[in-house]
Amino acid sequence: MYKGIVIKPPFFEIGPKAFMYGERMLKLAKAADEAARKYDVRIILTPQYTDIKLLVENTENVLVFAQHMDPIGTGRGLGSVLPEAIKAAGGHGVMLNHAERPMSISDLYKAIKRADEVGLISIVCADTIEEAKAIAYFSPNIIVAEPTELIGTGQPSDNEYIRETISAIKQINPEIQVLQGAGISNGRDVYNVIKAGAEATGTTSGIMKANNPEEMLEEMIKAVRTAWDEIQTTNKYL
Amino acid sequence: MYKGIVIKPPFFEIGPKAFMYGERMLKLAKAADEAARKYDVRIILTPQYTDIKLLVENTENVLVFAQHMDPIGTGRGLGSVLPEAIKAAGGHGVMLNHAERPMSISDLYKAIKRADEVGLISIVCADTIEEAKAIAYFSPNIIVAEPTELIGTGQPSDNEYIRETISAIKQINPEIQVLQGAGISNGRDVYNVIKAGAEATGTTSGIMKANNPEEMLEEMIKAVRTAWDEIQTTNKYL
Amino acid sequence: MYKGIVIKPPFFEIGPKAFMYGERMLKLAKAADEAARKYDVRIILTPQYTDIKLLVENTENVLVFAQHMDPIGTGRGLGSVLPEAIKAAGGHGVMLNHAERPMSISDLYKAIKRADEVGLISIVCADTIEEAKAIAYFSPNIIVAEPTELIGTGQPSDNEYIRETISAIKQINPEIQVLQGAGISNGRDVYNVIKAGAEATGTTSGIMKANNPEEMLEEMIKAVRTAWDEIQTTNKYL
Amino acid sequence: MYKGIVIKPPFFEIGPKAFMYGERMLKLAKAADEAARKYDVRIILTPQYTDIKLLVENTENVLVFAQHMDPIGTGRGLGSVLPEAIKAAGGHGVMLNHAERPMSISDLYKAIKRADEVGLISIVCADTIEEAKAIAYFSPNIIVAEPTELIGTGQPSDNEYIRETISAIKQINPEIQVLQGAGISNGRDVYNVIKAGAEATGTTSGIMKANNPEEMLEEMIKAVRTAWDEIQTTNKYL
Repeated sequence: MYKGIVIKPPFFEIGPKAFMYGERMLKLAKAADEAARKYDVRIILTPQYTDIKLLVENTENVLVFAQHMDPIGTGRGLGSVLPEAIKAAGGHGVMLNHAERPMSISDLYKAIKRADEVGLISIVCADTIEEAKAIAYFSPNIIVAEPTELIGTGQPSDNEYIRETISAIKQINPEIQVLQGAGISNGRDVYNVIKAGAEATGTTSGIMKANNPEEMLEEMIKAVRTAWDEIQTTNKYL
Repeated sequence: MYKGIVIKPPFFEIGPKAFMYGERMLKLAKAADEAARKYDVRIILTPQYTDIKLLVENTENVLVFAQHMDPIGTGRGLGSVLPEAIKAAGGHGVMLNHAERPMSISDLYKAIKRADEVGLISIVCADTIEEAKAIAYFSPNIIVAEPTELIGTGQPSDNEYIRETISAIKQINPEIQVLQGAGISNGRDVYNVIKAGAEATGTTSGIMKANNPEEMLEEMIKAVRTAWDEIQTTNKYL
Repeated sequence: MYKGIVIKPPFFEIGPKAFMYGERMLKLAKAADEAARKYDVRIILTPQYTDIKLLVENTENVLVFAQHMDPIGTGRGLGSVLPEAIKAAGGHGVMLNHAERPMSISDLYKAIKRADEVGLISIVCADTIEEAKAIAYFSPNIIVAEPTELIGTGQPSDNEYIRETISAIKQINPEIQVLQGAGISNGRDVYNVIKAGAEATGTTSGIMKANNPEEMLEEMIKAVRTAWDEIQTTNKYL
Repeated sequence: MYKGIVIKPPFFEIGPKAFMYGERMLKLAKAADEAARKYDVRIILTPQYTDIKLLVENTENVLVFAQHMDPIGTGRGLGSVLPEAIKAAGGHGVMLNHAERPMSISDLYKAIKRADEVGLISIVCADTIEEAKAIAYFSPNIIVAEPTELIGTGQPSDNEYIRETISAIKQINPEIQVLQGAGISNGRDVYNVIKAGAEATGTTSGIMKANNPEEMLEEMIKAVRTAWDEIQTTNKYL
């Protein structure tokens, strides 16, 4: 687990996948930069590899992650994404094992070790509680508990799934942070997930397919803050 | 076949694979930029995706290609390399179907079409004459005739292979340019390949593993020019 | 191209994929065996690997093909399908490069060569005319011209596609046989495809999802014979 | 975890990969059948898919496993290995996630569940202790602790690795059996691994590349028995 950067909860991941790139993506990143500052919420952006440097150089408050990387060192490997190259471009971390880019167990383990070596935060996707527990043994920084069947459907994880997953992961390694993904369509969904106990959540379609992505982004980040503050207040009086 | 950029022969491809990246790669790219100007030889660089924009913005005479891209349009596809994103980063083209990143026939066909649509030069690898002929039907801009068994061995393709491959490809589509790869270790190898009739060649290890990559780069580009001029002179008197 | 077995047209391929296996598949194979004899139509069955020997030993008139094989020789390769093992089990041929099991160009080329060496008929799938032409350079025995977008939809290839594909393939190598796939739902579809000039066709869902697969099989094989005889009669008087 | 068949230790796995098939494999299987009876050692054979039925029908004492299977149910999936088809051919189990056939975490989890449903013993490969622990959460019947770097080298796992791995796995789920793989070349290696505390081991090259595979098989199975009996005797007097 890379300790060079600490992401204080609550945080939020925006995954442009192959929806946005270049100047359009930069516009969204600037809106994220402003929302991160305004609401004091950490935001992770996972742009196309080609946009990492562009976003890093034009923002101050967001964390820029690669969508994937290969478990390799310098040398051969044409077409690969070299961990050192992500770091050199200014990237802060890397997403691994998303349902659209699954990795073998062995490659995932090596990639997490490479992220640690190179100095990249690792955020690893799991789509069942059993997978999340298995992945916890590899000590990534963050696990995305994202039931694959919900990706892109607009239906958020239920509360029981959220609590069970967080508890199962933290039992194996309490330092791992847990992001609840899948099915976030609007500020209301974000609010519900955070209130249900999540320390982080995120979306792709919720923002990418919104009529006004920047507006939706602000709505969601504001919801993170509102829900988080309500929990803190409640806890204070308990 | 994308017609927006014409690469006048002779040309030369330098493939850093995962050997060089970031500032070190930028240094090499600047040396390539200068050699391209000095010797009037077109140079293609295929850096890590994360370095495309960096090299494009800091050079004038080199062509910057992605090492691979996915045959997709905008939308889902986490971990993918979107054709539009390469173009937006300033990339001039894309390499496809290298032995270290093989593509299915169907994906290769689609990726070449996507390169045409987006405005990227396509350079496709083949490792037998039969494969080169098959690929010629997809009308890429350039075919790399690179016997896989020679990659990284320092043994250049023999003259017969060079002539047969060029002839076979041009018979199917005379507009396709042919690059003779594999086994280029020094200026002498480059000279021999161009004199044997190639309009282009290239290397990875020859430069990446050289004691002084920039010096080797200059030696090779100079050899391209020398061999090419000798052929032109000879042809003039025939 | 393996010449040890000649498949006289018309012929028909039935692809059980992962729908049928074991005793249920054997029942269908016996019905195919009887229909092949009764209507003098060659039938290719592509069962699960585990059923190849079972079907070969219990039929006389059908050809049993593997669904895929790896382009390897004896040695390492756990989880692979060895060409020699298919031959030893009595298999007559192998399907390659189906849309559900795409192969790289290089692997496909090697697999066709391995089929030739070992003595297996190769039937290779293509989903555009360009891909079919490219594959024709590798000299397989049979090319399946099967527009991917039609697989499983119940909509047959149109006549123009059929004629163009056959003509394009035969122009490169007249010995290659062409099977028109995709979208065959019943005897009427089969009749239309053969009348449109195909020497072969086939189905998966048409039979696998039929209420009575054996009845549908007989309907389709009968339609092959009827259409084929009508063409022969017509040609005789031309 | 499938409970329909219990494999009493000690046991031994012979992996023919793509080295042996058909009649030659049957000869080895018969020798294994006799050795299993003579030395009261359970033997698992993982032949080519096409040979599963052949071996099952011609042996009495060996367990026949597929080399791999796909995490699918009946339906589409051309080129796949359907769990139900292995079971129907008489197979007793399936190997998963070998270094030559890695699976994504999600597919591995699904495949183990499918093995349970269909009634197949699952034997899953891991190449580090961390991976073994992660896999233990999926409750397969057997985990092969096989440091990838040793496969085919003839150098057995060291005692510390053996003890640590067994202890780590049993701590998560004491019902999982552990097979120590990699680097077994002869009877002496087998003896050492069992004496070091393994309940099972196995080999590919040790037997496949032996001058007389049947003789080597007998030497190895005899060594399993000798080492196992010595341990039992020792334990009795402790």
